Amino acid sequence: MPVSVASEKLGIWMVGACGNVAATAAAGLVALQKGIAPLTGLVSELPPFAGIELANWQGMVVGGHDIRKPCLLQTADRLASERVIPAELLTACREELVAIEANIRPGVAYRCGQQIRQLADVQVADEAAVAPRQLVSQIQDDLLSFRKQHGLDRIVVVNLASTEPTLPADSAEAAQLTPTTWPELEPHLDTVGSAQFVASSLYAIAAFELEMPFVNFTPSVGASSEALENLSQRKNICHAGRDGKTGETLLKTVLAPMFAHRNLEVMSWVGHNIFGNLDGRVLDHPDNRATKVATKDKVLGSTLGYDPQTLVSIEYIKSLGDWKTAWDHVHFSGFLGTSMTLQFTWQGSDSALAAPLVLDLARLTDRAAGAGEIGTLAPLACFFKSPQGSSQHDFFEQHRALLEWVSELS
Amino acid sequence: MPVSVASEKLGIWMVGACGNVAATAAAGLVALQKGIAPLTGLVSELPPFAGIELANWQGMVVGGHDIRKPCLLQTADRLASERVIPAELLTACREELVAIEANIRPGVAYRCGQQIRQLADVQVADEAAVAPRQLVSQIQDDLLSFRKQHGLDRIVVVNLASTEPTLPADSAEAAQLTPTTWPELEPHLDTVGSAQFVASSLYAIAAFELEMPFVNFTPSVGASSEALENLSQRKNICHAGRDGKTGETLLKTVLAPMFAHRNLEVMSWVGHNIFGNLDGRVLDHPDNRATKVATKDKVLGSTLGYDPQTLVSIEYIKSLGDWKTAWDHVHFSGFLGTSMTLQFTWQGSDSALAAPLVLDLARLTDRAAGAGEIGTLAPLACFFKSPQGSSQHDFFEQHRALLEWVSELS
Amino acid sequence: MPVSVASEKLGIWMVGACGNVAATAAAGLVALQKGIAPLTGLVSELPPFAGIELANWQGMVVGGHDIRKPCLLQTADRLASERVIPAELLTACREELVAIEANIRPGVAYRCGQQIRQLADVQVADEAAVAPRQLVSQIQDDLLSFRKQHGLDRIVVVNLASTEPTLPADSAEAAQLTPTTWPELEPHLDTVGSAQFVASSLYAIAAFELEMPFVNFTPSVGASSEALENLSQRKNICHAGRDGKTGETLLKTVLAPMFAHRNLEVMSWVGHNIFGNLDGRVLDHPDNRATKVATKDKVLGSTLGYDPQTLVSIEYIKSLGDWKTAWDHVHFSGFLGTSMTLQFTWQGSDSALAAPLVLDLARLTDRAAGAGEIGTLAPLACFFKSPQGSSQHDFFEQHRALLEWVSELS
Amino acid sequence: MPVSVASEKLGIWMVGACGNVAATAAAGLVALQKGIAPLTGLVSELPPFAGIELANWQGMVVGGHDIRKPCLLQTADRLASERVIPAELLTACREELVAIEANIRPGVAYRCGQQIRQLADVQVADEAAVAPRQLVSQIQDDLLSFRKQHGLDRIVVVNLASTEPTLPADSAEAAQLTPTTWPELEPHLDTVGSAQFVASSLYAIAAFELEMPFVNFTPSVGASSEALENLSQRKNICHAGRDGKTGETLLKTVLAPMFAHRNLEVMSWVGHNIFGNLDGRVLDHPDNRATKVATKDKVLGSTLGYDPQTLVSIEYIKSLGDWKTAWDHVHFSGFLGTSMTLQFTWQGSDSALAAPLVLDLARLTDRAAGAGEIGTLAPLACFFKSPQGSSQHDFFEQHRALLEWVSELS
Repeated sequence: MPVSVASEKLGIWMVGACGNVAATAAAGLVALQKGIAPLTGLVSELPPFAGIELANWQGMVVGGHDIRKPCLLQTADRLASERVIPAELLTACREELVAIEANIRPGVAYRCGQQIRQLADVQVADEAAVAPRQLVSQIQDDLLSFRKQHGLDRIVVVNLASTEPTLPADSAEAAQLTPTTWPELEPHLDTVGSAQFVASSLYAIAAFELEMPFVNFTPSVGASSEALENLSQRKNICHAGRDGKTGETLLKTVLAPMFAHRNLEVMSWVGHNIFGNLDGRVLDHPDNRATKVATKDKVLGSTLGYDPQTLVSIEYIKSLGDWKTAWDHVHFSGFLGTSMTLQFTWQGSDSALAAPLVLDLARLTDRAAGAGEIGTLAPLACFFKSPQGSSQHDFFEQHRALLEWVSELS
Repeated sequence: MPVSVASEKLGIWMVGACGNVAATAAAGLVALQKGIAPLTGLVSELPPFAGIELANWQGMVVGGHDIRKPCLLQTADRLASERVIPAELLTACREELVAIEANIRPGVAYRCGQQIRQLADVQVADEAAVAPRQLVSQIQDDLLSFRKQHGLDRIVVVNLASTEPTLPADSAEAAQLTPTTWPELEPHLDTVGSAQFVASSLYAIAAFELEMPFVNFTPSVGASSEALENLSQRKNICHAGRDGKTGETLLKTVLAPMFAHRNLEVMSWVGHNIFGNLDGRVLDHPDNRATKVATKDKVLGSTLGYDPQTLVSIEYIKSLGDWKTAWDHVHFSGFLGTSMTLQFTWQGSDSALAAPLVLDLARLTDRAAGAGEIGTLAPLACFFKSPQGSSQHDFFEQHRALLEWVSELS
Repeated sequence: MPVSVASEKLGIWMVGACGNVAATAAAGLVALQKGIAPLTGLVSELPPFAGIELANWQGMVVGGHDIRKPCLLQTADRLASERVIPAELLTACREELVAIEANIRPGVAYRCGQQIRQLADVQVADEAAVAPRQLVSQIQDDLLSFRKQHGLDRIVVVNLASTEPTLPADSAEAAQLTPTTWPELEPHLDTVGSAQFVASSLYAIAAFELEMPFVNFTPSVGASSEALENLSQRKNICHAGRDGKTGETLLKTVLAPMFAHRNLEVMSWVGHNIFGNLDGRVLDHPDNRATKVATKDKVLGSTLGYDPQTLVSIEYIKSLGDWKTAWDHVHFSGFLGTSMTLQFTWQGSDSALAAPLVLDLARLTDRAAGAGEIGTLAPLACFFKSPQGSSQHDFFEQHRALLEWVSELS
Repeated sequence: MPVSVASEKLGIWMVGACGNVAATAAAGLVALQKGIAPLTGLVSELPPFAGIELANWQGMVVGGHDIRKPCLLQTADRLASERVIPAELLTACREELVAIEANIRPGVAYRCGQQIRQLADVQVADEAAVAPRQLVSQIQDDLLSFRKQHGLDRIVVVNLASTEPTLPADSAEAAQLTPTTWPELEPHLDTVGSAQFVASSLYAIAAFELEMPFVNFTPSVGASSEALENLSQRKNICHAGRDGKTGETLLKTVLAPMFAHRNLEVMSWVGHNIFGNLDGRVLDHPDNRATKVATKDKVLGSTLGYDPQTLVSIEYIKSLGDWKTAWDHVHFSGFLGTSMTLQFTWQGSDSALAAPLVLDLARLTDRAAGAGEIGTLAPLACFFKSPQGSSQHDFFEQHRALLEWVSELS
């Protein structure tokens, strides 16, 4: 570990760099660098984190991939009109965002489904005619250029792209045929159109091979296979994921422990989510939605110790834009079997909730890498709906684990 | 400590024995003894408590005081019609409840305000013409008779009576004149109409002098003065309190830590509570309500580290009966200052939520007494809105402290 | 028209006689006859209806069909445990309900889908091997026996059975091939397995041929085809329908006119319905649900004058039983394009809301028949989600039309 | 009536011209004149109003009184930051708003309570040392100058100022002593510090004496006394009021008729309102709030035909700014006495809801004056919480009455 990571330069490479979360994170980072944004929402700025040396906002540089023509500013302007990014803040940061937009390169769209593919307006390789290795190389070239151009000491790669359909190889049957070690999987990279990969896993591979940490903030498969875990360990690099826990699911993992600790029996838990951003439009396709719902629906059983009836829906309602509204109805049974109800409505900006966690995760994953951590970073579970390396969904247990880890690092 | 507390007989003496909470707890206990009620809602039946020997349901006997003519069955019948107690369960337990009703003695109504006093239909002493010591003796006579009549090994006294107006001596100015040791306070017991006491503190004194533990499940002052703490320590007995945390406040102490851990800034937290039981009717008087609102409104600041604007109301809406409905509106600020909102509606039976905690607290306080604990039982903080002996309001920190204590006891 | 319909005997024949709505209507009717139920919920007992002579509660007799073995009492008992029917009321009416149960005959299950068919525990004809005419005759035999046995002056047939999948012939393409007159349709009754009919239309045909009015309280097709309208006119009989408007949709048709009259633009209207009764279980099948959602989703456009984005879901959540909970989120735009939100949660007993309307509709349809009304009864639109004979969905316009009709009748 | 009112110049004189509603109305009017705002929210732009000739937006000029130094632009800027007025729209209208700000004159603060008086930063006469007539003259001078300066054909005076405490003379006892004719009341104008008037009634008197129509959009007393009605009739001028119906109360008058028409019994109706604008700060004082709550709480009884238990609160929560959030809980009883619940949450911009109604009322009152209407304009009841001249609170009956009136005028 260097004498001071804080004084060095850290690149944050965002996959899906023109999306809402990326634009909010980028605008927020610039505002932090200029000292014109409050620290609200940043976990890594809370007192328990004061004891560990984290990358300084000043030294961070943003770049990324997107399958759309660079439109970071356009996205940021839209978010300003949707009152996610304050208009005056955006005006003050515009120049720096133009510079960030220049760091965005054409991404890859390998086997990520029609719903995502049709968003592409840069040329993306025909997935039936390309060997995945070629795409990995393209990604790596972009990462290395970015490092060189900006004189970066380190890079963290963060996946913020739209949710891919579930990898067929993710299913139980397919799992048996799936390579579980890197040496077994690697040769498939040379097979044109190989079904062993999706775009998000190619990004993870690219990062790992370059010994860069990888954060999967989406429900896509990313680095969550055994073979990729194996690769990360071989490369002595760490990674974290899966699917940022920002709203309704966060509340589930906060409230479920209360029911458990009070011995109240949850009979049913219904959650309806509506929102109108691009993520919503992609999730409007059943294949992509299935991936998402799966990660949202697993959190109760492990905390409660039994499986109540659950229902989770995510629906695209255009007029809401980035404002995700969730209604949850929890029907529970108390003493003498008396039925009672808790309902909540959550009205939050999806991107304003996610963006600071992206910055936090970049800092924490970078710090973990500096400390020599290898493989899945289980102590970061509290940031994710489907925490890799942890079966703990109770937010407060996750939080305690995070603080213990921070305490060990300091 | 006896070889097995579980096989002995424990008396639970309920102050306010004809109220909703007492009737639900009594009916529930009988149902547990008959094996016809599920264990839902009972914290002390959760796995972590398996390691400590707690009083067995079978050996428990209920008695109590009330300023109304014994009407436990009438209350229970009303609760059945309000679907708090299942009708068939009540039918099965009726005989035993008749026996419990026979254990109810006329209570005292010393300086507890007009709103409560007018509920009395037994003869209660004129508070301007009686020395408090006389009332303490009356209470003690009843406790000793109860012990003798039922051959009880131990008794726990639990205050479930309506909320008294705040004791003038509770105010900051008055606090300086208030005796802080038992030897200073005790002589006032002989002053006719002394303003140093209210009914709830007389019950606590009566219990402590008999070396019985005392639980204050209400916001009334009970044993929370320095002089009574001093008495409990002199008598080597323990006590716990203040104001059972069952609904809206429970949720506040569950959700506030989430906002804190995510560095989200709560700008305002509004909570409106409506319900129509007797507790609600008593709280409809501003004096009594002031006592309650004070305990509900303090929980946020200590967890958040700052004081957001708060508003708490409790209103009597007759048609709701025992069903307390709370609407909370939390307005918070996230990344880049973006305002967001969480609202929840809680619809719970006040008594069905409180009753199992009363049984839990009787068991746990009895166990603590058996283990020789003295004075305030801070580890029971998670059960209370205004935990005595603890400034911790975060439910999960409180819960962890409880489990640590249980672990030490086992 | 007789001198006094009020003194005569009216039979109410319920299709789906063992379901929740039928059981609640039957128990309610008996309670009204005994004078032990309030008139709450009965529209026909409001002042404007005092001027027309409606069938007296005393003279009404209930019978019906069901494809389950008679289990009216079992249903009523379950509803009492779900606090839809008060337990003591049910006890007082038990004897009369036993008598009603004896009037229930095995129903038909023609082409009503697997989800419904599997509920049958009486022998139902194989739909691939029976001519619909045979089933119509069976229904008519039961109706005539009922009339004879109880010396009834008149009978109204009310469809309360589970929602059938949409008749293929209901679709736009099929519509062209569908017979539009009774003489064209009638011969198909003799075709074994004819796709021209479903159970609900067979009941309507049976009623019309016997010159009995028919009420379709469900979203099933019933009498809503042109050919059945033609039959009703040929037989000089009237009918009303489709799909009782009891909860969320009622609110939509109450609130949408407000937005229209204030020139507020509804951008999106999302409605999620959860409940756990049999109706819910049947609707859990996509085919049956499609029929229902279609009727719920059409009400906004005609009132607003434009089609906002809408979403309607109906989901089966077992723990809720008969208690339908709906959450609606209305996103609207006001002056200067400012976005605002109205949310509501409706928690109602599906059966307690529907049952009085069933009794009202029986009385009003009977009265209309007595007044010589023929064909679709458009003035009853306010009772239905998909009012036949009317494109008016504004509840207050519908209500005004009802009062005008009542005024003309008196 | 002139050949075409549409081509003439109409002055809209706003009392409270620097408040949120006035600023939104002024900005909106300018935007309408420029053709850059949609017609959303404007009732008078709906099809039924096409048949009557209303003042054209182009010919309208805004002026007004305020007891604060002119700060219309400051208010508008704040509203833009609160996302009530779109920022770009405000930019486009800035020049015209500067011109409007120049039309604002120092207002009067006669007997309107400390809560309002302390807002004044212009010199306001000492109410104990001034004869009301002097203030009326001051107001009239300003109105006449405004008319002359802008060559206006007509002026409508609209009261948008903060809610005054209830006039003592408004109470039942005082009512007997209160003059009921203008000749009786007028001499009091010369009494220094007379208790017969408050600021809002002085504005009404000033308008009526100049034969200008007056609209009271607030709960203050304004023109609602018998003596002022008498004055308006003597002057052959019309007026309308009291308290714009924009949010929670609008919903009450929309939903209550539904319960009535379905014979559902409302047992209790609780409404909690929270918001953080200046109006909220003024209403935070119990005197001012009493005036407001009274007008909000009367609407149910007349529609339902009985008085359910009601509770209405209005609380100042600073963080909400202009965004009024209301939670209503309606507990009602249906068939067989089954209890059910409807809850709604309304999240609306107070000013964006009120402003278009202000413009509508100016147009409609002006049109009525042109048509020779005299005294209270009862057909405008649908715009008000406490409609003068009407006891009808049912929104749809009110709306029908409005359309009938419009139809008579055309």
